[in-house]
Amino acid sequence: MIDQEHIAALAGIVGDKAIVPGNSGMAAYQSGARYDEGRAALVIRPQTTEDVSAALGYCVRNGIAVIPQSGNTGLVSGSTPDASGGQVVLSLDRMTQRFDIDLDNRTLHAGAGFRLSDVNGKLEKHGLFFPIDLGADPRLGGMLATNTGGSRFLKYGDVRRNTLGIKVVLADEQGTILDLTSQLRKNNTGIDWKQAFIGTSGAFGVITECVLNLEYLPKQVATAYLVPSSGAHVMPLLRAMEDRLGAYLSAFEGISGNAIAATLDHVPSLRNPFQGGGVPDYVILAEISRTWEPRQGEQSLDSVLEAVLAEIWETDEAPLADAFVGPAHEMWALRHALSEGVKHAGKLIAFDLSFRRGDIMAFCDRMKSEMPKNFPEVTIRDFGHIGDGGVHFNLTVPKDSASATEPDFERRLRDWVFAVAVDDFDGSFSAEHAIGRKNQIYYDLYTHQKIKDMAQGLKAMTSPGDLGSVRFG
Amino acid sequence: MIDQEHIAALAGIVGDKAIVPGNSGMAAYQSGARYDEGRAALVIRPQTTEDVSAALGYCVRNGIAVIPQSGNTGLVSGSTPDASGGQVVLSLDRMTQRFDIDLDNRTLHAGAGFRLSDVNGKLEKHGLFFPIDLGADPRLGGMLATNTGGSRFLKYGDVRRNTLGIKVVLADEQGTILDLTSQLRKNNTGIDWKQAFIGTSGAFGVITECVLNLEYLPKQVATAYLVPSSGAHVMPLLRAMEDRLGAYLSAFEGISGNAIAATLDHVPSLRNPFQGGGVPDYVILAEISRTWEPRQGEQSLDSVLEAVLAEIWETDEAPLADAFVGPAHEMWALRHALSEGVKHAGKLIAFDLSFRRGDIMAFCDRMKSEMPKNFPEVTIRDFGHIGDGGVHFNLTVPKDSASATEPDFERRLRDWVFAVAVDDFDGSFSAEHAIGRKNQIYYDLYTHQKIKDMAQGLKAMTSPGDLGSVRFG
Repeated sequence: MIDQEHIAALAGIVGDKAIVPGNSGMAAYQSGARYDEGRAALVIRPQTTEDVSAALGYCVRNGIAVIPQSGNTGLVSGSTPDASGGQVVLSLDRMTQRFDIDLDNRTLHAGAGFRLSDVNGKLEKHGLFFPIDLGADPRLGGMLATNTGGSRFLKYGDVRRNTLGIKVVLADEQGTILDLTSQLRKNNTGIDWKQAFIGTSGAFGVITECVLNLEYLPKQVATAYLVPSSGAHVMPLLRAMEDRLGAYLSAFEGISGNAIAATLDHVPSLRNPFQGGGVPDYVILAEISRTWEPRQGEQSLDSVLEAVLAEIWETDEAPLADAFVGPAHEMWALRHALSEGVKHAGKLIAFDLSFRRGDIMAFCDRMKSEMPKNFPEVTIRDFGHIGDGGVHFNLTVPKDSASATEPDFERRLRDWVFAVAVDDFDGSFSAEHAIGRKNQIYYDLYTHQKIKDMAQGLKAMTSPGDLGSVRFG
Repeated sequence: MIDQEHIAALAGIVGDKAIVPGNSGMAAYQSGARYDEGRAALVIRPQTTEDVSAALGYCVRNGIAVIPQSGNTGLVSGSTPDASGGQVVLSLDRMTQRFDIDLDNRTLHAGAGFRLSDVNGKLEKHGLFFPIDLGADPRLGGMLATNTGGSRFLKYGDVRRNTLGIKVVLADEQGTILDLTSQLRKNNTGIDWKQAFIGTSGAFGVITECVLNLEYLPKQVATAYLVPSSGAHVMPLLRAMEDRLGAYLSAFEGISGNAIAATLDHVPSLRNPFQGGGVPDYVILAEISRTWEPRQGEQSLDSVLEAVLAEIWETDEAPLADAFVGPAHEMWALRHALSEGVKHAGKLIAFDLSFRRGDIMAFCDRMKSEMPKNFPEVTIRDFGHIGDGGVHFNLTVPKDSASATEPDFERRLRDWVFAVAVDDFDGSFSAEHAIGRKNQIYYDLYTHQKIKDMAQGLKAMTSPGDLGSVRFG
């Protein structure tokens, strides 16, 4: 809880309109979109960087903890207040005053409060988009704070790669504004400080504006479902596709049969694309795309993909057991339904792991072999971004099982999966969801002391105040 | 100068073989490849990260200044010793013990001592390359320390974008080794500390190993020289190319007629590609490429480029005055000869600027109009990477002119060009050459105090010792 005096002072700073009134108004800011709930002392919604600065400075001077909140679609309790009721939520949802497209520079300078769907909606008429493809619809500030990746990472990279500049407010007594809103693609005149604020969950400052790289929208897309001959054939298949298709290849997503089965069960409108009504053990959704319309005498992209798959089919390694090109919207509809689909197959315990690409299937094999004896009630329903090493390693247990109710179960399961992923495979315990309160114990466990010390040093010299959900250092 | 005792101690640490004997042996390490000369107290060439650590720790404990040196091809006095004779040069040229290609991951884990040409030579048989295209042939450590860009930035990005991990030795009393050699493409579990060492001239630590992203070699390339209807037509032309060609477009280089003329004069074996023996005011070298062989029924890439240029020719904006597709090796031979070519047209004063793309031609116009009255003896011979906003704004004065001998001339010229580029156009005074001793005064001039303070803080917590050529903070 914070004093009425502080609430009045903050209202004076950001204006009454920027104070969310009452508990019912605050409810939306206290719960994450999918998980997780806390209690806020106050929710403020400043409209300008200057107001963020004034409010943040005030909070630091008065020892008030602040949680920056953007779209609140994260999965690791990064943007919701904790249960204490003592944290002020600083929502970015009104930071939408600036939206400047520079067509020559192919960049967008925007407030951090825009949703991804809004951004791409406004860009469409220019034939451009911000090329981060996600199931969720976050706001830009949160995308930067978590460095989101998504399904087209393979072609376009993550948010870090597509960010030219940011404006950030530090949680120091002055609410210092760092204007790093460079419009330049190349600039090597010192430390690239924006990197310290990207993917670090808002602990070092609140991003209020950003300058983003834009890409031209694809004008042709072709998609196929590929069934690899075995798990060991997934990498040869990826390499054969990359070798032949290069920058055309815009997605190479792996999906376990268990994830597909759960999703088809849950969403009856989805058609089972596989012959005979069964579902293969493992499937790849591959997409190729290009930015032009087919010209006279040129093959359609479907034909290109079919020709490439026919070549790969004939190679000595014979990586394909089945493959068919089909309509993109239908193929992606199944892919995009997976997150919700697996949630309905039981109690979900979700992991967002990443590996060297060649280790993904080995890790999955290890899990398949050891899970039954360690956690017999668990079903593995993984899917993910094989092309960039990411795996949404999603597990379910029956909702009425002993595991679902055992208080310590999830912690034991997480400890074991992370131990195998991080210790044995040099993988990451958070590929694209960042840390948040949820992964704090694993940051503490897996981070070297020197790195923690450096993080603490960075914290002290940027935002010494109590900012964000993660304790670095 | 340093004591014989220290020399003996360092020889004991890195081994006699790693000590460069005598002044004649040291000469190669005291001069940059193109500019700049200093005097070293000692040159050491350790072979392992552990030896770098031991040597660096010793130097820090004994107050000895160290200059890390890689290929020494830089242009800003970043890797040569100063004139004092008191600095130890730490050459990375024997750091070539590790060269591990991971074909599945499409990455290379290599020692920092490999030259770019060696790296790409070894990768060729796998159909892969490290996609940074430069005129010079630096070693990897220096490429990381300066975050080099080059001619294919538009498609593949800079070194930063293509680096997954590094191993770095800090200049502290222990010579702390930070092992950040991640093989992961996605990992958001804390601060991405490697970013602090990329592009910062070795001031915060010595990079000894790196993990790099590789790309498949193009199997088809098509190039064209384009003559824009005017400077104002360059951006519409770029946008028309990007819109139609997307990720195919791998270079869009601008070249002034003055740079071409100087180069044709200097290299008689180069053919003048333009009709009638004249040279246009401004030319674009455009390249498109893809990673597959043409398949049956598919157009050659030359035909694709011709068709696209024909379309653009017909657009209402009429951005093209002339355009012709031609042999890649010949078109690039002229482009790659420019650096040397302009050097022979007089005394060269070279700038490595960058801008928002839409500002490049406006900046060049401003210079063309104001240069004659401010610096009448200067000829502008610019060329550069229009696609990413970079301009090698190279100027010459006749070798026997008053300007060439006036001691203060270069400083006055630099001050003015940078003032226009940075203050008036929000450009960068070093797009891809980094800071070095040469740009130190402009770092001091153009960097905000808070950023300097943060840099100093970072310096204190990473490498408090006297390391590198740049004073941050």
